[in-house]
Amino acid sequence: MSIAIVGGTGPEGSGLALRWARAGETIIIGSRDAQRALKTARQLSASAGADKTISGTENRFACSDAEIVVLTVPFAAHAETLKHIKPSLRSGQILVDTTVPLAASVGGKPTRTLGVWQGSAAQQAAELVPEGVIVVAAFHNLAAELLQQEGAIDCDVIVCSDDKDAGKRVRELARKIPGVRALDGGKLENARVVEQITAVLIGLNIRYKGHSGLRITGLPETAYEN
Amino acid sequence: MSIAIVGGTGPEGSGLALRWARAGETIIIGSRDAQRALKTARQLSASAGADKTISGTENRFACSDAEIVVLTVPFAAHAETLKHIKPSLRSGQILVDTTVPLAASVGGKPTRTLGVWQGSAAQQAAELVPEGVIVVAAFHNLAAELLQQEGAIDCDVIVCSDDKDAGKRVRELARKIPGVRALDGGKLENARVVEQITAVLIGLNIRYKGHSGLRITGLPETAYEN
Repeated sequence: MSIAIVGGTGPEGSGLALRWARAGETIIIGSRDAQRALKTARQLSASAGADKTISGTENRFACSDAEIVVLTVPFAAHAETLKHIKPSLRSGQILVDTTVPLAASVGGKPTRTLGVWQGSAAQQAAELVPEGVIVVAAFHNLAAELLQQEGAIDCDVIVCSDDKDAGKRVRELARKIPGVRALDGGKLENARVVEQITAVLIGLNIRYKGHSGLRITGLPETAYEN
Repeated sequence: MSIAIVGGTGPEGSGLALRWARAGETIIIGSRDAQRALKTARQLSASAGADKTISGTENRFACSDAEIVVLTVPFAAHAETLKHIKPSLRSGQILVDTTVPLAASVGGKPTRTLGVWQGSAAQQAAELVPEGVIVVAAFHNLAAELLQQEGAIDCDVIVCSDDKDAGKRVRELARKIPGVRALDGGKLENARVVEQITAVLIGLNIRYKGHSGLRITGLPETAYEN
């Protein structure tokens, strides 16, 4: 199984790529610029270890080779990128959307979000992918700075999808990042809230100088196993 | 200093009342029905200990005697209650809004929220209180079931307000609940997100049979002290 990271040269995408490569996943870094993708892939390979498989190519090529496509572009490029990769997506693929519609996308504050007509970036994605491509919203609340470092990450990942099997697969992927626990956040529409939590975390980061995340408390241990 | 709990006969209000009474605060339970308020006050006194001060009266009377007014009514009664207590509120008072605009208020799901024109219940409250009354949004994510039990609560409280001093006072109040840590969530407008987190937590409770809460990670210890 290989994972394409669309926008994989950015901080969130390269951080996820690094963590998954270390866990033994086959990673394809996607970028608008194939040369930049290759450069990032080489840098990440150096960090992840020589036996790890990280390649780099243009976004569209990255998608056609992958079983799971992870979208990690800024919201300003969200719709445009989805339209661009659409011809390379096929029924049965999972598209993991990590995008947060921060107001910073249009020159506003990173502590505010934009209203997306469909309700969330993930729901916008669901409208833009070909039929049969399953959208899963996840990883919004994982700080890129922490992904790029070594060590366990003290954060839970809330996964939202209308497809139970795809959600489960993405939770398994989340658990490959040391420290991360993954939870079923219910339907894709719940990404509305999970995306926006990021704006609050960014505010806390600014106020308190940290890289905040969140842990859900009060659930049985079995909640994190499946 | 005394704290009026408007809607204090409900699960969230009586839970907060119990915790604060145990911490030595003077509590006035408010209800539309003075007799019900008195009854709840007596029950809570029995739980909290004979030396604790919990009285009960009609919402409006409760407010006029208090320095801090905590609003814990369902969203369906939010605007109406604020209009009702308005004549009893005065400049300098702090109104703590705990309300979550759940879609259940209008017969919808408790895992969904309503769009509030002002952006959040707390911002609606800010529009309905007399001038000089300071609105602080807090306690949305604390499960009533846990408040009503003994023992520490494994949850952080994110406090949002446009008034720094009032926010600090409410954070101090939050820290009187064993286990609770309090954080400055920034301006009142950020209640938009904090309120909605509750809908996600309710979804997790239904899915996993728990009483979920949240902890913010990745911040320096000093973040929780002030």
